Amino acid sequence: MTQSREEFEARLRRIGAERYHDKHPFHDLLHSGGCTPTQVRAWVINRYAYQSAIPMKDAAFMSRVEDPALRRAWRSRIEDHDGTDTNEGGIERWLRLADAVGLDRDYVASKRGILPATTFAVEAYVRFVRDKTLLEAVAASLTELFAPKIHAARIEGLLANYAFADDSALSYFRNRLSEAPKDVAFGLKWVLDHADTAEKQDAAAEALIFKTNVLWAQLDAISAAYVAPGRIPPGGWQPDTHLIAVAA
Amino acid sequence: MTQSREEFEARLRRIGAERYHDKHPFHDLLHSGGCTPTQVRAWVINRYAYQSAIPMKDAAFMSRVEDPALRRAWRSRIEDHDGTDTNEGGIERWLRLADAVGLDRDYVASKRGILPATTFAVEAYVRFVRDKTLLEAVAASLTELFAPKIHAARIEGLLANYAFADDSALSYFRNRLSEAPKDVAFGLKWVLDHADTAEKQDAAAEALIFKTNVLWAQLDAISAAYVAPGRIPPGGWQPDTHLIAVAA
Repeated sequence: MTQSREEFEARLRRIGAERYHDKHPFHDLLHSGGCTPTQVRAWVINRYAYQSAIPMKDAAFMSRVEDPALRRAWRSRIEDHDGTDTNEGGIERWLRLADAVGLDRDYVASKRGILPATTFAVEAYVRFVRDKTLLEAVAASLTELFAPKIHAARIEGLLANYAFADDSALSYFRNRLSEAPKDVAFGLKWVLDHADTAEKQDAAAEALIFKTNVLWAQLDAISAAYVAPGRIPPGGWQPDTHLIAVAA
Repeated sequence: MTQSREEFEARLRRIGAERYHDKHPFHDLLHSGGCTPTQVRAWVINRYAYQSAIPMKDAAFMSRVEDPALRRAWRSRIEDHDGTDTNEGGIERWLRLADAVGLDRDYVASKRGILPATTFAVEAYVRFVRDKTLLEAVAASLTELFAPKIHAARIEGLLANYAFADDSALSYFRNRLSEAPKDVAFGLKWVLDHADTAEKQDAAAEALIFKTNVLWAQLDAISAAYVAPGRIPPGGWQPDTHLIAVAA
């Protein structure tokens, strides 16, 4: 039976409450100051896979949108990540975080050393957006509904607990605090407007669950490799390699 | 054998000299004032298929580009067509041309009435960019090398020969006079830099030939349907339908 707009929105929010990766133990470790420098670096390296793929995901979406107005509204997501004349962009900000934790940014940007499981999860997301309905693609983006809370917790936790953390290093998260709500307000309205049958509501909810899995799987991969008794798979980044000197 | 940069560029330019759609008889008819209002309208309706697909093509390209700098450079093509806060964009300009020739712009934008052969050609281009190498995708865009000449001829020919033609109606072509050279300078350099083996040069040349075919096929479709003794296929736009009143 088709849910009302309010019921359906509540259903989507419940998915976040139950499955968003703020619940993952690695985030507790990270935000509480429990991560070693190696674990922080492994997270920065692996999370770059996701950051760098997001504009490709958004371009894949736009390549399937017939409506110029929808493409125009969506384009700012790519600008937020790839940058503009007046905005360095999220990818560059992530590389500043890499600098701050003492990683060679060229190594991070090369994407060598990223765990295969991380890459597979990210690629699954890009492929999902390329292959599924536009509704499912937009619904998958709605994890942004739950992002501001985790970004705020992250800024607070990293600042309190790690010497590397300062405004420059954390500018990625600070910017997402304003960018994500704008995107998700648009995306949520679009999904609520277009999921007008029970079948579409189910598909949209499944898409959001899929996306929470994409995020969760990345933290599982990082934990399995770098949290004791971790086993780093062949080709994965080795601790204490590709470092640069940073101010103490 | 790998050609020198100069030889290879000359080869690409020869493809334009031999195969670009400025050689198509429909363009002679159009630019010389020989088109009936129906033929001009059929051209405006069908060419909208191409205009409206170009940003989807460019987004498909960007969805495959790993390098943020290349994505950033390419993004302006989408902005040129879809518009920005300060630029109405090429698609909107094309709809102003539709207004000027007395067509219901909503009908044009609906893409109903476009000839199947036109749609197939345009879709083949989007698919090509999605599936082929990045080199082939960029090489296919190099028909822009030959576009300023045809746009200049078109502005002059339409202004001289048709009552509907004025600065507003022709603004699409006027804007392309400055947009296309910027894009193609970037694209040509990229192709010359990356086509560094005979095999890649052959692939790039074939891609450019493919693209000239995409353009040519659209004019063949329009001619077959609307130039005597034309036969409009089922579903194709019917003359004197979907018109609006325009100032004489």
